[in-house]
Amino acid sequence: MADRRFDVLGIGNAIVDVLAKADDDFLAAQELPKGSMTLIDSARAEALYGDMGPAREMSGGSAANTLAGLASLGAKGAFVGKVRDDQLGAIFRHDIRAVGIAFETPPATAGAPTARCLIFVTPDAQRTMGTYLGACVTLGPEDIDADLVAAAEVTYLEGYLWDPPQAKEAFVKAAEIAHQAGREVALSLSDPFCVDRHRADFRHLVDGHVDLLFANEVEICSLYEVESFDEAVAAVRGRCKTAVLTRSAEGALILEDGEAVSVDAEPVPSVVDTTGAGDLFAAGYLYGHTRGKDPATCGRYAAIAAAEVISHYGARPESSLAKLLRG
Amino acid sequence: MADRRFDVLGIGNAIVDVLAKADDDFLAAQELPKGSMTLIDSARAEALYGDMGPAREMSGGSAANTLAGLASLGAKGAFVGKVRDDQLGAIFRHDIRAVGIAFETPPATAGAPTARCLIFVTPDAQRTMGTYLGACVTLGPEDIDADLVAAAEVTYLEGYLWDPPQAKEAFVKAAEIAHQAGREVALSLSDPFCVDRHRADFRHLVDGHVDLLFANEVEICSLYEVESFDEAVAAVRGRCKTAVLTRSAEGALILEDGEAVSVDAEPVPSVVDTTGAGDLFAAGYLYGHTRGKDPATCGRYAAIAAAEVISHYGARPESSLAKLLRG
Repeated sequence: MADRRFDVLGIGNAIVDVLAKADDDFLAAQELPKGSMTLIDSARAEALYGDMGPAREMSGGSAANTLAGLASLGAKGAFVGKVRDDQLGAIFRHDIRAVGIAFETPPATAGAPTARCLIFVTPDAQRTMGTYLGACVTLGPEDIDADLVAAAEVTYLEGYLWDPPQAKEAFVKAAEIAHQAGREVALSLSDPFCVDRHRADFRHLVDGHVDLLFANEVEICSLYEVESFDEAVAAVRGRCKTAVLTRSAEGALILEDGEAVSVDAEPVPSVVDTTGAGDLFAAGYLYGHTRGKDPATCGRYAAIAAAEVISHYGARPESSLAKLLRG
Repeated sequence: MADRRFDVLGIGNAIVDVLAKADDDFLAAQELPKGSMTLIDSARAEALYGDMGPAREMSGGSAANTLAGLASLGAKGAFVGKVRDDQLGAIFRHDIRAVGIAFETPPATAGAPTARCLIFVTPDAQRTMGTYLGACVTLGPEDIDADLVAAAEVTYLEGYLWDPPQAKEAFVKAAEIAHQAGREVALSLSDPFCVDRHRADFRHLVDGHVDLLFANEVEICSLYEVESFDEAVAAVRGRCKTAVLTRSAEGALILEDGEAVSVDAEPVPSVVDTTGAGDLFAAGYLYGHTRGKDPATCGRYAAIAAAEVISHYGARPESSLAKLLRG
């Protein structure tokens, strides 16, 4: 096995988040399913942005948020994702490098601009997203550096990567290289609608191609088309080495090697914005996992990381997660 | 006098803020004078951004922040300022229009990109700024629409506008049109270093060309090159109709028609980031002023608006100031 230079390599959509407050009436009028991510094209993105209130911009992207969380915990990470050579692309590159993540994917020099995710945060702290994938659609297998994949203990893939047409080839290539190098592959299901779009592919991946699966309750139920969490647990059990199933305020259930471990959610004085909760849960879990911790400890790290990110606006940590872990 | 279509027209630099946390050692290493604004060129902006931590982007600009505050209070406003036709320019335009401010200045189609202000917020909630003026340097008298100026009860000018070479001509043209139309002119001194750069011009403006002057303690002392606030008060008294002199936590002193009115600062549970405090103080004051309120009432509105903006990151209000005023 090659030297381990990175704890986690994340491959995902390179996105700048555009966050604004909105109310339920706005979501209804815009026909955006609350709490989920809707893919939008350039024209819809422009129209939706035109109706959006004053916003703030922050680097986002599901796997990229997870990497930012890992960096805040003290792990070494690398990220692969596609931006354009434009101002938003420069912002994305700056922010991920500024936290110490290696990011060398060359930007696209033509075509669609850097991706953005319009995020509407409602007073109940839920976030509803409209994503314009922009330059992400040009990520392809040629962007996967075999040495980089082999140098990372875990290659972490976001399910959203199944949306841009060429990216899934990059995804599959990376997973194969990782396993050939004796490394692990982790997958996040990302979103119930995303699972709906790619159910067969995701089921195939979980059966033997993924070591760690991250999903929330709605996503895992969607994957196996069942009505209850218990049925979903029964359906996924034994299909991959570890399944980390999150249930918002009810904590999480971790299935590993035939065992089931429950993890409590970390109390939060005030939930402000749930954007990034799942991403940061994965960050905390992977941090523990790459340090050889047991599932209960990994789950506790995960809950602490998720609690930090939902206590403020934005999907990346604002406090040192390493300090929070030390308590 | 023409119909009043706007309470306030603001003319200022059109800037996107880039905010990150930093500590005092960082400011010292970068030779940035704490609490002030340093003008930086493109190369320095790039180098400084490279050393900056992960950031968030939010529309800013001193006068533009004041207009956003006025909109949140329920006033009608318009803004004149220069962006480029780039992504950051689109963000600036979106955010100011999204709060209901008229903004029709055509973007520059060539030359420097949209201006940005790198803002470093230290743990003591102070902000230290490095501003790359970018496209702002192309604002000129041709961007001043006489009808627009005549239609606004107050034309509000930020002192920072004296920095880009052509903008001061726009500034002077607007002031002359306003007075010819029987309107008022307000000026904010912006920053002690800015006063230092343009002291003679600012003194000349205050003597007869400005109706309302906004300055903090350090700026007014710098304007008259005196050591104490009392000396500054004596120096400015009688030179313009109204002088609004702010003193951070110690509140403000308003000099009007020979009277002096003290205003207390509004208590804030936790001061997070003082960016925009002066801009929002001016917003609250101008809101009251354009509604015919006395100086004490205007000062109270001002204190409430400033308190809101220093209780969170960023220079524009996040809560409805109209509601806070009623509260």
